[in-house]
Parts: sequence; C-alpha cells; structure tokens
Amino acid sequence: MFEAAKLGRRVPKEFFAAQVPELRTALLDAQFRLGASKTGVIVLVAGVEGSGKGEVVNRLNEWLDTRGVQTHAFWDQTDEEIARPRYWRFWRAMPPRGEISVLFGGWYLEPIEHRFRGQCTDADLDEELTRIRQFERMLIEDGALVVKFWFHLPEQEQRKRLKELARDDRSRWKMLPDKAKFPEEYSSFEQIAERVLRNTDTGIAPWYVIEATDRRYRDLAVGQTLLRAIEGRLAHPEPPPAAPLSTAPSLPPTAEAQVTLIDRLDLGHTIERNHYDREMKRLRDALNERAWAAYKAKRSTVMVFEGVDAAGKGGTIRRITSAIDARLYRTITIAAPTDEERARHYLWRFWRHIPRAGYLTMYDRSWYGRVLVERVEGFATHAEWQRAYNEINGFEEQLTENGIIVLKFWLQISPDEQLARFKAREDTSYKQHKITDEDWRNREKWDDYKLAVNEMVIRTSTEYAPWHLIAGNDKRHARVEVLKTVVQRLDAALAEKPSRAAAGTACERRRAARPTRPST
Amino acid sequence: MFEAAKLGRRVPKEFFAAQVPELRTALLDAQFRLGASKTGVIVLVAGVEGSGKGEVVNRLNEWLDTRGVQTHAFWDQTDEEIARPRYWRFWRAMPPRGEISVLFGGWYLEPIEHRFRGQCTDADLDEELTRIRQFERMLIEDGALVVKFWFHLPEQEQRKRLKELARDDRSRWKMLPDKAKFPEEYSSFEQIAERVLRNTDTGIAPWYVIEATDRRYRDLAVGQTLLRAIEGRLAHPEPPPAAPLSTAPSLPPTAEAQVTLIDRLDLGHTIERNHYDREMKRLRDALNERAWAAYKAKRSTVMVFEGVDAAGKGGTIRRITSAIDARLYRTITIAAPTDEERARHYLWRFWRHIPRAGYLTMYDRSWYGRVLVERVEGFATHAEWQRAYNEINGFEEQLTENGIIVLKFWLQISPDEQLARFKAREDTSYKQHKITDEDWRNREKWDDYKLAVNEMVIRTSTEYAPWHLIAGNDKRHARVEVLKTVVQRLDAALAEKPSRAAAGTACERRRAARPTRPST
Repeated sequence: MFEAAKLGRRVPKEFFAAQVPELRTALLDAQFRLGASKTGVIVLVAGVEGSGKGEVVNRLNEWLDTRGVQTHAFWDQTDEEIARPRYWRFWRAMPPRGEISVLFGGWYLEPIEHRFRGQCTDADLDEELTRIRQFERMLIEDGALVVKFWFHLPEQEQRKRLKELARDDRSRWKMLPDKAKFPEEYSSFEQIAERVLRNTDTGIAPWYVIEATDRRYRDLAVGQTLLRAIEGRLAHPEPPPAAPLSTAPSLPPTAEAQVTLIDRLDLGHTIERNHYDREMKRLRDALNERAWAAYKAKRSTVMVFEGVDAAGKGGTIRRITSAIDARLYRTITIAAPTDEERARHYLWRFWRHIPRAGYLTMYDRSWYGRVLVERVEGFATHAEWQRAYNEINGFEEQLTENGIIVLKFWLQISPDEQLARFKAREDTSYKQHKITDEDWRNREKWDDYKLAVNEMVIRTSTEYAPWHLIAGNDKRHARVEVLKTVVQRLDAALAEKPSRAAAGTACERRRAARPTRPST
Repeated sequence: MFEAAKLGRRVPKEFFAAQVPELRTALLDAQFRLGASKTGVIVLVAGVEGSGKGEVVNRLNEWLDTRGVQTHAFWDQTDEEIARPRYWRFWRAMPPRGEISVLFGGWYLEPIEHRFRGQCTDADLDEELTRIRQFERMLIEDGALVVKFWFHLPEQEQRKRLKELARDDRSRWKMLPDKAKFPEEYSSFEQIAERVLRNTDTGIAPWYVIEATDRRYRDLAVGQTLLRAIEGRLAHPEPPPAAPLSTAPSLPPTAEAQVTLIDRLDLGHTIERNHYDREMKRLRDALNERAWAAYKAKRSTVMVFEGVDAAGKGGTIRRITSAIDARLYRTITIAAPTDEERARHYLWRFWRHIPRAGYLTMYDRSWYGRVLVERVEGFATHAEWQRAYNEINGFEEQLTENGIIVLKFWLQISPDEQLARFKAREDTSYKQHKITDEDWRNREKWDDYKLAVNEMVIRTSTEYAPWHLIAGNDKRHARVEVLKTVVQRLDAALAEKPSRAAAGTACERRRAARPTRPST
C-alpha cells in the first residue's frame, strides 16, 4: 500500500512556483461554488510522525479562503469531552453545508495509537474500523464529502525528520526511539496503518496516500487532489447509492397479517386513585434516590418520550422531573430545527445536547421524528428514513458504550381516548394552545403512524436500548408504569460493576490513562 | 432588609390547595404568551443554606410547561469553563427570547461566598457588584426580564434545617457549623447578603426577599411574584429607559473641527520588496515562536480585524495564520447571525466563540459591527449602538481579566486606493465574488463610516485593549505593521509575571483553589 509513497517523487521549485497561482485560483473558485452547495467537506490529515501534517494544513489555509475553513486538532481532550461518548468531539467539529473542516487525525488517531501501543488486538481494531466505515458512510449519504490524506515517509527519511524535530525547541515532539528499535517500530506502525487504510479505503471515502519526502510534491498533490475531489462533487452532487437496507417483509393484505405491536397492546389497564397515590409516593422517593446515586456513579440517563398526540408525554415527564433535584436533569423539547442544525446531519442536533456524565436528560420527542413524522409527512425521503434505523441504532449504541442508560417510551392511547382528550383541551382555557389544526390532521393519518411506529419498534428495540410500550388510556397507569420502569432500569444499571469501563469497545476497555501522544 | 423575612408568615394547607389551580392556569397562559414575545426571562434563585431552593425550582417545573424552561446550576465548573472568562458560564445559560432560564445562584453565588470566606474585602465585593449591575442592565436593555428571588430563614429555623440536611443521606450538605459559632456565622452571612442585595436591588431588577420557613407560603409567593413580573412585562414590553450615555460633543460645522483620527493617519507609508521579505521572514518566525510560548503559558489571544472594504483584512489574516501552527488558531468570519444568535443579546454570538486558554482567535469583522455597519445602515437603533460602547468595553475588560490578550486593528485605505482595488477585483476571475453591489453602496457612505470609526476608536480604545490604526494603502507596510504589533503585544504580555492571576478582579486574585460549596 505504501510502495508508491517511497519512490522519491519530487517537484522542482520552478514548476511549483508556476503551478501554484493557477491551483489557488481554481481552489478559491471551487470553494466559492461550494459555499452555495449542500456539501460540507471533511478533510482528514493523517500519517506518520514527521510527515509535516501541520505544514500541509498551513498551506491549505494559505491557499483557501480561511472564511469557511475550520481546523480541529484533537490533542487535549477537555473534561466535557471525556464525560461524553467518544464521537461527541467529532460531531462538534462537523462543518455546516458549504464549509470545510480540516481534522488532524480525526477518528483514526486513537485506534491507530491504541493498536500501536498494544492496548488492543487486531480484532478490536477491526471492530473499530467497522464503526468508522459506518460513520463515514452516514456522513456521506447525508451529502458530506470526505477527503482522507495519509502522509508517508520512507524509514530513513522519517528517522531524519524525527531527529530534527527532537532538536527543535518549538516542536512538541521530544521523544526519539532508540536506534536499534527504530526499524522495528517503523515496520510495526506501517503494518497497522496499512490494516487501517485497507479496511477503510472505501469507494465513497478513499484514502489518498501521499509521499511526504518532498514538501513541494506533497503540498501540490494535496492541493490538486482536494481540488479534484471538490470539483467532482460539485459536478455530481447527488449522494452515492445507499447501502443495501434490511427492509421489512411485504405483508399479505389480510387484516390479521397486518396486526402490529400497537394492536397487541392492552389499553384497558387502570389504577385506582388510592393505589396510585401510594405507588407514586414510593416511586418518586425511589427515583430521587436513584438520581443521586447515578450522579455519584457518574452514570447519565437519556429518556426518550414518544407517543401519539395527547398520549400524556408532557404530564409523565413532569411526574419525573418534579421528583428529581432540578440540578440533575434537563428536559429538551424537540421542535423545528434551527438553521445551524439544518446545515448539518440530522443527528447533529441530538449529539450537541448529550448530557455530561451523571445527569438525566428527558427528550419530549426525539431523533425518532425521522422515522415517524418525517416519514409519514414525507419530510424525509424514503432512503433517508430507511437508513435512519441503522444510524439511530449506532447512535444509541455509542451512548450505551459510554455508560449512558437509554430509556425509550412509546405512549399509546386509543383513537377514542385521543378524541376525548382533544375535546377536553379545547374546553380548558390554558390548554387550548396545546391543540392545533395539525393535531387534527395527524389524527387522520392514524394508520400510517401505526405502521411507522410498528417498524420503528421492531427495528430499533435493541438489547442495549429497548422500547417500552406504555398503555396510556389511563394516565395513572401510564405514569406508574413509566416511573417503575425508570427505577428498575436505573437499579439494574447501577448494580453493574465496574459500570462505565465494561461498556466500551475493546480498545476503550484497555485505553490507558496516559495522554494522547502529540503529533507533528 | 430581612426583617420581613422573619415574621413567620404561613399559608394554610386548604388555602394553598385552593390557590394553586388558578395560579397554574395563569402561569401557563403567561408562559404561552411569553413564547410569542421578544422577552427572555432569567429567574435567579438565591438565598441562605437550607431555604429549599431546589424545592422551589421543582415547584416551578411542576407548575410551568417545562418546554421552554431550562434550569442551570453552577456547581461543578468544567475545565472548558475554567479556561475562559468567568461570565462565559452565564452566557451559555442565557435563554432565547420567549423562554425561561432558572439559575441557581447565578452570578451572585461566587462573590457572596468569597466574601463570606474572607477571600476579599467589602471594597472588592462592591467592585464586583458594580459589574453585576452593569451586566443585568445590559440584559434588560436588550429586552430580558430578570426576576431575582432571595430566600431567607430566621436563625433558629436555619439551624434546624441544616441539622436535618446533615442527617439526610441524599443531601449534599454534610457540614454543620459548631453550635457556638453558628450565631456569629449566621449574622456574618446575613450582613454580606444584605450588602449584596442593597447594592444590586435596582429599579429594573429588584430583589424579592421571601421568607422560606413555611414551604407553602414560599412557593405561593414565588409563583405569584413570577406571574406578576411576566404579566407586567408582557403588558409593557418596551425596555426601560436607557442609562445616561456619555455622548460625543457636538462639533462646530467647520472642516477643521470635523477632523477625525482617520484623517490624521498618514497613508503614504511604503516598504520596498526586499526589506519586506526580510522583515516578514523575521516576523513570521517570531510569531510562530510567540504562539507556542503563549500556548505553553496558557495565554489566549483575540485579534479583531476591522477596516474599510478592500483594506486587506483577509490577506493580513492569512499572513498571520500561515506563520502559526494550524492547531493553535481559529479564524472566525462574522457574517449574518444565525437564528439561534438572533434570539439573544448581540454579544452572545461572540461569547460562544471565546477560545480556550492558550489559543489564538482571529476575527474577520467582529462585535464592532454594532457601532459600524449597524449604526450607519440603521440596523441598530440609536440607543442600541450608543450603549454598545460600554457593553463592548465591559466585554473586552472581562477577556483581559482572564488573561486574554486583545488586539484590535483598524485597516484604513484612501478612497482612491479602494476604487483601484474594487476595479482590480472585478478584473480577476477568482476575486469577482469578493466585490458586490453592497461594496459600492458602502463606498457612498464613506463619510458616515469615517465618523463612526472615529467615535468607535475614541470610545473603545482602552488601556487594556487599545486600537491599532494601520495605514493600508501599501499592503506590505500594513502587513509588517500588524505582525510587528502582534509580536510586540505578545512579548509584553508574556513578560508579565504572574500572568493570569494578576489580571483578575480583587476577588478573583484571592480566589482559593477549593471547590465551590454545594448549596441545597
């Protein structure tokens, strides 16, 4: 894989000087047209130590219009980052459509370093690379352009550069492997890099391996490759063909074959007043206690509340929040996205609100809007909501790996009960604003929603984040069920030992506490 | 001040039960109307230990629609917060217009605690309270409603509550002052609280002191006070009369009386090519070195670039960024605000990008848009841009106190030079998009801008953040001047010892490293 990066390719000074003005003009022009497009560009700058990644980025900043270009290094992890799932850092760095983010190392840095230091096995590494492929595919299907550069040096050249760096006062690079070990380390690193590149060199996000011996060759190759990639995307802006999707089977058109999970839900449960009061008192006390215990154990909880209109989501959330210390929770109501959110992948707006370790976040509606309202109303294309199931499962898996307890509730009521509640809302002064024409329109699509909910539950009820279907015709029953489930799930999670560490990937589990090695 | 909070006021259970439904209806209705208004509501919940601030907030969350209410505690400061000016935490918690933020303690917590622990004097405290008054006034003039509650307990009652809390397993409150000292501590805390309340009890942001002995009285008083405050604001949405402004004197209408700082700037400076190349090499090396030194010393730099159109802001910024390691800087181009930004005070969008300690941020245009384009084009009202000078000075003062080096450059060219550059842009393919009709329109307002710039420089050139006026007709001269200034300012700042600590307020200087005491 790296043979072509050891040919000693060079570019003479005069040739470089002659090429640059034209290249720069073309880059600025492409960048200007990019600004009006729906494509965000992610440039990954990775490679062996000493290959001059910083110099390359400086060159890009010189050639491009720095308006619309952001550079992100992933050196010093802040405690806000440590207290959240690993990929939160990368979501923070996502460019809006029309702009460019240059990422040093990005999501490749850690897996390579962990493997190099022997903190994980090849199998662990491959597992991580599978996640990376899915992650990149997700971004690209959403319209992003991912351009990945790997800078390489022959052994002798790298050794020379590292020596220079170690001498240089300004360099962060202070270590030099001892002479005898160097060939072995070089070869070990190269093997790992090759494994990583081979496994993530996909048709939609290929690696560009560039020899870094000659700086002019290196920079010119980067500039021209980036230019070609952007121009190519602008000429063919449509996203790549979607990955094959696991689709639901076609159902025979008989009523019984069409039965859904929702139909099977017994809405007849009721709880009488006295029993309810006793149960709620007990559950509220238990919940408050568990919330503090989770805070002390640094375990976060994410609760998702979905349900048909007027199913009682708000009231149920209020029963939870009023039982917990207000400093421990946050409620997030999902309404229309802001323009900053619309400019990025639809999961970005959920990533940005991920709680720090130890807190509870309640979502009144959630990322499931993608496969519910957006599907039924046609706001998302068929391909978009179809691939959302996998994207959401991946998202929740990452939350869980980070030790976050994910609870998902679907609140169901019958059409008759909904009608009664709609009418009651219209008759109660302070509830009138809760009922709109849209609610009446949604009601007409009852069956479409039922099918969407059925598929959502089947395809996103995972071992680590199952759906809890709640019969809501009787509000008291629904509230007791929800609180009981929350307490049980918190109990189970808090009983796990050791809590967070056990949940990560294999590489994560073995992650040493030592800081990331600075790269040049 | 606290006499009325020791009268033993109570509310009988039946009365409470009878009042609540009506109050809740009214609150929900007010909240609904608030949603459509331009007012964001900040509710500050402060008071003596044991007064049940957490209970009050839970009650509000029960009564209000939690959609549109966010609660913020300022317990555990994250390192991202520590690495930025103190008020960054509070800016993060600002509600958008139409919503409510409930803040535990807010900006009052730290000053009171520092004074109580003897870490600062009354004079230091007063200095901090002056800042708080200015800060609240700024928010209120922008349309915010600030409702401040202080919960108080008589001595015996507090002692009883603290005992209960110390016994309670779930409470964070574990300490109990010894019996002999308690009366003294109670009285000392009360004196400080009284000083704080007296100094910040302004007509536009009054304190509501509420006796917390009886929970029903306390909660009902809070609910009704908040309701009255919101309804009052909705009935009279216009901001309060502005603070008296220091205005520029009227100038006699003779040409010589109208001379501005800009007119006095000698635009004739030039640098010849060879000298330029030598100087730039030296300055670029120096800059790179200083950037690393600042990184190591955890000193941030904020550079503001303003100037007439085509004055060379972008090119100058590029000369700086290409000299510095790309991992150390960020460039931010100020364009139209996003909708999330428009929903808050205009300084919010600048606060959110404040760099962490150790990094450089370059602003291509900045918060000065308020007193330049927004003034000249009439996007801001007269009162808005007039008060912006003070707001900006306060903002930059806080940056400086945090150890951030603030550099402000105004790049000036002559009208003839601008015309030449506009024409050149129209003739260069990749520069055509840099010249728009707006640029030609701005040109017609040359004299208006000159006056605005003159006033801006006079009123915001402070000891801690002076303006540097740069003659830009000769690009080489301008770039050398800017880089030289940056190197000099960094040198001077890095020579200060001890760097950051010396810059804070008196309270800051004495701030102990111990964590903030948890409150109940």
